[in-house]
Amino acid sequence: MSHERKNELNHERKKLAVLISGRGSNMVALAAAVADGRVPGAEIALVLSDRADAPGRSLASERGIETLAVERLGRAREEHEREIVAALTEREIDLVCLAGFMRLLSPAFVGALSGRILNIHPSLLPAFPGLDAQRQAIEHGVKFSGCTVHFVDETLDGGAIIAQRVVALKDDDTPATLAARILTQEHEAYAEAVALVLSGDYELAGRRVVRRGAALRSDV
Amino acid sequence: MSHERKNELNHERKKLAVLISGRGSNMVALAAAVADGRVPGAEIALVLSDRADAPGRSLASERGIETLAVERLGRAREEHEREIVAALTEREIDLVCLAGFMRLLSPAFVGALSGRILNIHPSLLPAFPGLDAQRQAIEHGVKFSGCTVHFVDETLDGGAIIAQRVVALKDDDTPATLAARILTQEHEAYAEAVALVLSGDYELAGRRVVRRGAALRSDV
Repeated sequence: MSHERKNELNHERKKLAVLISGRGSNMVALAAAVADGRVPGAEIALVLSDRADAPGRSLASERGIETLAVERLGRAREEHEREIVAALTEREIDLVCLAGFMRLLSPAFVGALSGRILNIHPSLLPAFPGLDAQRQAIEHGVKFSGCTVHFVDETLDGGAIIAQRVVALKDDDTPATLAARILTQEHEAYAEAVALVLSGDYELAGRRVVRRGAALRSDV
Repeated sequence: MSHERKNELNHERKKLAVLISGRGSNMVALAAAVADGRVPGAEIALVLSDRADAPGRSLASERGIETLAVERLGRAREEHEREIVAALTEREIDLVCLAGFMRLLSPAFVGALSGRILNIHPSLLPAFPGLDAQRQAIEHGVKFSGCTVHFVDETLDGGAIIAQRVVALKDDDTPATLAARILTQEHEAYAEAVALVLSGDYELAGRRVVRRGAALRSDV
């Protein structure tokens, strides 16, 4: 049974696109996870940035990954997104991973790739959505925060949750020190989440992402 | 320095009141923590229930703790709360711990005991305030929840956070199975939080509760 699934995945590698705006540290971590077998049956087929000068581009190129800049500066969102979707479609991308991609995606974009866009957010959602999540967590005084990998839907950081990791706050944390510790966890959580989604070994029960075959109690 | 503090605390034991409506499992856990020295310099001076038939009353009596029922049924909140405050004042209670106390407290009550009321909530606040927090967490699909001990203010489950504990969710969790695992953590978190508050060894920075002397960066 698990053998069959493995064979199926190896039959044709699943194509990931990673969308970045900056250095794309989660992109680099995903590339490393793919390289060392933690995301079975996958390849990163494209790193797409919306800024020509995104530092992550050269990091991707060094790893032999195709890069493409679809500059957003001075362009209407619709036109910009259409070009991105065309690039993804042309390359038959299976799964899109946002990694510090700074532009909010329109419902049209999300609809075109429904269930095939993941994002990572530096908090334990639903706490602290939006910008500056680490600062929000510190100022709220929580003792634990973390990161969340989720499907992207029309809501801000509100899609179904695939994986989370917990990070303890320290009394003397600044947004920068907390962000650094969360980032380490992001790298692991993202690879784990991508592997799960590509394996197909999950089901969606309401907005819960559970392993396929896990008991889904009707009384929940 | 720490010697001085200890002596000071032992000089006169701090008096806790625990307010319950039901079996008061957190009350029992606090009593155990006080008995085995995890809450230095404290005694539980009163277990107050707002239902005469609260099962926790006999558990408290068995431990030699004074119990008092201030029946709420059929009474206006103001009058009921006045009677509770009078009972606490009469006994010179230092700290009030809510433990499954079901009635929402008025701003007047909270004001009368400002900074001296703690509550425990079965989620990682600010996520899932209000009723049925475990079910909320399951239905939202989070991978981690937990519990939060916080100061009580006028907001619903919104006061400054003193302690939290994390609990991993399982795919086949029901609200009951999750609640049971969180409850175990509640017992430890509550004792830890009460000990910290009674020690006085913390400061409030905005809404952050931090150990006294921990660096408070102005850039946060």
